[in-house]
Formats: sequence, C-alpha cells, structure tokens
Amino acid sequence: MTKPPGSLGVLEDVAAQLAGTAGACPPPLPEPAVVAVFAGDHGVHAQGVTPWPQEVTAQMVANLAGGGAVVNAFAAQLGAEVVVVDVGVATPVGPAAGLLERTVRRGTADLSVGPAMTLAEARQAVEVGIEVATTLAAGHGCLVTGDMGIGNTTASAALVCAFTGAAPAAATGRGTGIDDPTLARKVEVVTRAVARVPGRPATPEAALAALAELGGLEHAALAGFVLGAAAARVPVLLDGVIAGAAALVAAALCPAALEHALAGHTSAEPGHGLALHALGLRPLLGLDLRLGEGTGALLSLPLVASAARALRDVATFDSAGVTEK
Amino acid sequence: MTKPPGSLGVLEDVAAQLAGTAGACPPPLPEPAVVAVFAGDHGVHAQGVTPWPQEVTAQMVANLAGGGAVVNAFAAQLGAEVVVVDVGVATPVGPAAGLLERTVRRGTADLSVGPAMTLAEARQAVEVGIEVATTLAAGHGCLVTGDMGIGNTTASAALVCAFTGAAPAAATGRGTGIDDPTLARKVEVVTRAVARVPGRPATPEAALAALAELGGLEHAALAGFVLGAAAARVPVLLDGVIAGAAALVAAALCPAALEHALAGHTSAEPGHGLALHALGLRPLLGLDLRLGEGTGALLSLPLVASAARALRDVATFDSAGVTEK
Repeated sequence: MTKPPGSLGVLEDVAAQLAGTAGACPPPLPEPAVVAVFAGDHGVHAQGVTPWPQEVTAQMVANLAGGGAVVNAFAAQLGAEVVVVDVGVATPVGPAAGLLERTVRRGTADLSVGPAMTLAEARQAVEVGIEVATTLAAGHGCLVTGDMGIGNTTASAALVCAFTGAAPAAATGRGTGIDDPTLARKVEVVTRAVARVPGRPATPEAALAALAELGGLEHAALAGFVLGAAAARVPVLLDGVIAGAAALVAAALCPAALEHALAGHTSAEPGHGLALHALGLRPLLGLDLRLGEGTGALLSLPLVASAARALRDVATFDSAGVTEK
Repeated sequence: MTKPPGSLGVLEDVAAQLAGTAGACPPPLPEPAVVAVFAGDHGVHAQGVTPWPQEVTAQMVANLAGGGAVVNAFAAQLGAEVVVVDVGVATPVGPAAGLLERTVRRGTADLSVGPAMTLAEARQAVEVGIEVATTLAAGHGCLVTGDMGIGNTTASAALVCAFTGAAPAAATGRGTGIDDPTLARKVEVVTRAVARVPGRPATPEAALAALAELGGLEHAALAGFVLGAAAARVPVLLDGVIAGAAALVAAALCPAALEHALAGHTSAEPGHGLALHALGLRPLLGLDLRLGEGTGALLSLPLVASAARALRDVATFDSAGVTEK
C-alpha cells in the first residue's frame, strides 16, 4: 500500500484481525452491520442502586423498537440496522417490528441476596444469544452488541469483580450518573454479592455458575452472542461495560471466541476499562460515553469498515508509480 | 432526549459546537463532507530529515488525484469527496480531475538556513486556503483538512515550537518512521530554525512572519482554510500535526476562527499533542495514526455526523412515554 509501514496505527491491527476472522485478505467489508440490543431487568433494583424506575427498561425497549433512541439515530446515520431482543424484561412489552421476544424469565432475582438466576436459565439465555448471532450472521457482515436494562451496571460490576479479581470499589461506577450515597450502596451490594463467588472462574462450568449467581439475562445472552459471532466467523463489536462483563464470561467459556471481537470504545464506567484490560482488548474510541444501547460500539463501525476498505482499495507503490524509500 | 444527562460524553460538546457554528439547533448534518489535501514541498528536505525522496510528493499528488491513496479509500467508505490542491509541489504534476493548481512557488526554501518563503508568498498561500474553503463551503456541510508533502513534519515541529514555546526535542517526532540519527538531525535543524523567531507571535503580523520563516506552503494554505471555514460558518475537522501547526497560525491570525474547528484525532507525532493542548482542542480519536492526507480527521466525520443526528432524531422522554428519574 502507498503509505509508510505502520502509519495506520491501530487500524492495521484491526485490518489484520478482520482478515483472520474471514480467513481472507482483503477481508470482506463489515457490511451490513446490525446492532442487537439485549434487554433485561434486574432484581437488584430493589436495593436502590439507581434513581431510575424499573419500568423504564420496558419503556425504552418500546422506544428502541420504535426508532426513537440514540442508537437508532446513530444506526440511521451509519447505515446499520437495530434489532431488540427481550431476554428478560420484567413486564411484557408486546409485539413490535424489530423486537424479538426471547424471554427467559421476567427479570433476574436480587443478586445481593442470592443467585440472580438458575444455571438452567443462564444456559438458556446464553443459547438465545448464540441463536440470535447465528441468525443475524447469515445476512450481516458485522454484529454489534447493545444492551438495555435499568440496574445493569450493578450486575456488570459484580461480574467484572468475579472474573478479574478487581475490588468492588474500583469496578463499581456511577452508571447513568448516581450520587455519592447511591454509589456507596451500590459498592456495598456488589461486595456482598461477589463474596459468594469463590475465586475467579477457571472452567466453563464455574463461569456459568458465576454468571447465574451475579449476572443479568442480557449479560448471558451477550456472552452467547459473542460465541455465536465467533462460530459464524463474523466480527463482533463490543459496546460498554455490560458487553465487557459479558465478554469476560464468553472468554471463560471459550477463550478463542474473543479473537473475533473488537472493543468499540471504553466507557466512563470504571469496570469497563478493567474488563478490557483483562481481555487484552484495546478500545477504538474513548469519548466518555456512558449510555449503552450499543452506541459506543456502533460509532466504531466506520473505523473498522475503513480499515477493511483500505486493504481492498489502496494502490501499491508499484501500481501508483510511487518511489519507495 | 431519551438518555441520561451527559451520557454522550464528548459528543455532547461536539453537538453544541455544531449548533453554535450553524447558529441553529438542531444543526444541519455535516454533509456532504470534502477533504482538501493541500500539497507542497520543503526545501529542508536537503538536510536529510527524511529517507523519502522529494519526488514522492508529486507522485502521491497524482495518486491522490487518481483515487489510489488511503484517504481516497476512507472517503469512498465514508461518503466524502477529496480534492487535491497543489499549493507548492516542487515539480509540475499536470492537470488531473480533482486537482486544483494553485501553485504559489515550487517548494519552500530550506528553513534551516533562512526564511522558507517571503511574507508575500505566505500571504498568498493563506489566501489560497481561504479561497478553497469559501468555494467548497458553498456546496458542503463539512470541510476536512488534508496534507501531503515530504518533509512537512519538520516544518510542523518548527511552527509548533515557535507558536507554543515547546522545546524542539519535545515537539519533533519520527514522521513516517525515521531512525535515531535522522531524528537527531531533524531536532538540530528545528532548533536552529526556531532560534531565528524572537518569542511567541503575539500579533497577526508576527504570526505571518513566523509562518514565512518556518512554515510550508501547505501550512499557510491550511491556516487560510481554517479561517475560510470559520467565515463561512462551516465546521472544519483538523487532521494531524500539519493541520495542528497550521491551526496555531490561524489562531494567532484570528482566535475566534478556532471556535468552528474540531480536532479529528491525535497522531503519533509528539508536536501534535502539544499543538492541540495549546489550542484547547480535545481530539476525537487516538489511533496512533501518522499518515496525514486527512485520514485521521476524515475518520472522525461519522462521530461528528452522529452527534448532529442525535440532536435531530432522538425522541424526548415525553414523546416516547419514558418516565424520567
């Protein structure tokens, strides 16, 4: 290519990874892309870890399905599709175009007092993610993780602590923007929950058990989504701390799966950086986003597509008649 | 908007700036976008500051005009146009589609031994940039800076030192990837040149004099391009260290002009970070790019467009029926 070696920085690694995932160089463009927004509710909401009412999850699922959320605006701008997957919203949302009803249970139990879900439910939610990824991979060149669930940064922090060994105070953040007393309560809740998980999960069985103990249904589905994308050899762009926590689960279930994942961004939530560090993923964007929905991952799509495009289109020194140094 | 306050991070500042530039909220989408690649040669090439032969500038201008460079691939992917402006290439490139011939002189003089150009030439090159920006602003919603010129990181480092007070060893980098002896020579060249500029330019006259003493013709044109974009109230996305150095000149000529500029990325070249810090601009991307051509700025375009799109499209809590906390 007519450029100095290494001059495209991180995008050279992205291009190489895409070629590896596809088993072809140049790799296909990651198009069309689709964001799968996995939605679920969290029993830990009862502990007062967020000022938002739980009903907002269902309302936002309707907003996402109706095209009114930020991720819909970004998707329209960037030429991507959005599908919403109800994997565990507490109240029925009702059928809507672009909404897949895959309810495993109507919200998790309160992770601060006991297991968030059963092993069977965790497994079923993982399988939902695999199924959605497999179906979408058949018609799309890139999968993007999205999430919606009031209370899900609490479950994410707990998963990050369990899978990385991080301290709850270091991994727990302000989510949508909570005050100091709420943050203190949130750290205390995470501390109590993580204490029930003995050591970092070293086997797939232990990973599934920790997921059931601490995670959300959308975390489970997202872990499956990452596995399904890898199995289909389609690149998957990870969003924020919810996806990062889910990717830790996916890596514990099948380490090789992460070879096909890219970290779209690093969010303002401290547990996200810890998760990415543990996964060895360098985020493409750092814009202090803390919205979720898949917004940060989706914004990285043009970078990934441009990296692939450069491999395909750029002239060589020979073909362009440019002198090499 | 149906999102927690502040949750779009840096993009909220971008959206507010776009609204300010347009004098309208929501602002228009920054479309269509066009990259103007200003090309020039540098007499300092004679000092051995780069391993690339000077003829590569003209060859790459032909490659850019022919659509074979990386910025062309990125532009095709991202829906932008590319125009190339010969403002000072050492050898005639010849007419080509998409190439504007605005030659002020065929390359600068060697800045290590005397002024790179006359005051009149510097002014004329600034005016080229203003003219190109004014013309392009009439049919485009976003202007993107691009540059091509073997040796131009040496002139950039000299400008950064003169306009920020930075030490030559701190501001001078490896450009396309030079070895240690070449870097030492480059620092020495920059040190000698900057010593001829007495203090940081405090007036427009002093800024033009420093530009003529140390800059390249493409730096002068890019400074004018930033001024022209501001006058036309069209946002301008700045690329790497060449644009950063030119923006320092533009800020010294007219500080208010920078209110309409966005830093697309921060490059691997150390002088770029120093320039952005002095300008108070936070870069949107940090991908360790060091290619120039406008590649880094262009990659930030989807972020800027998405920020504008969110202001336009996203539902409110009321319209979506979502409960506020």
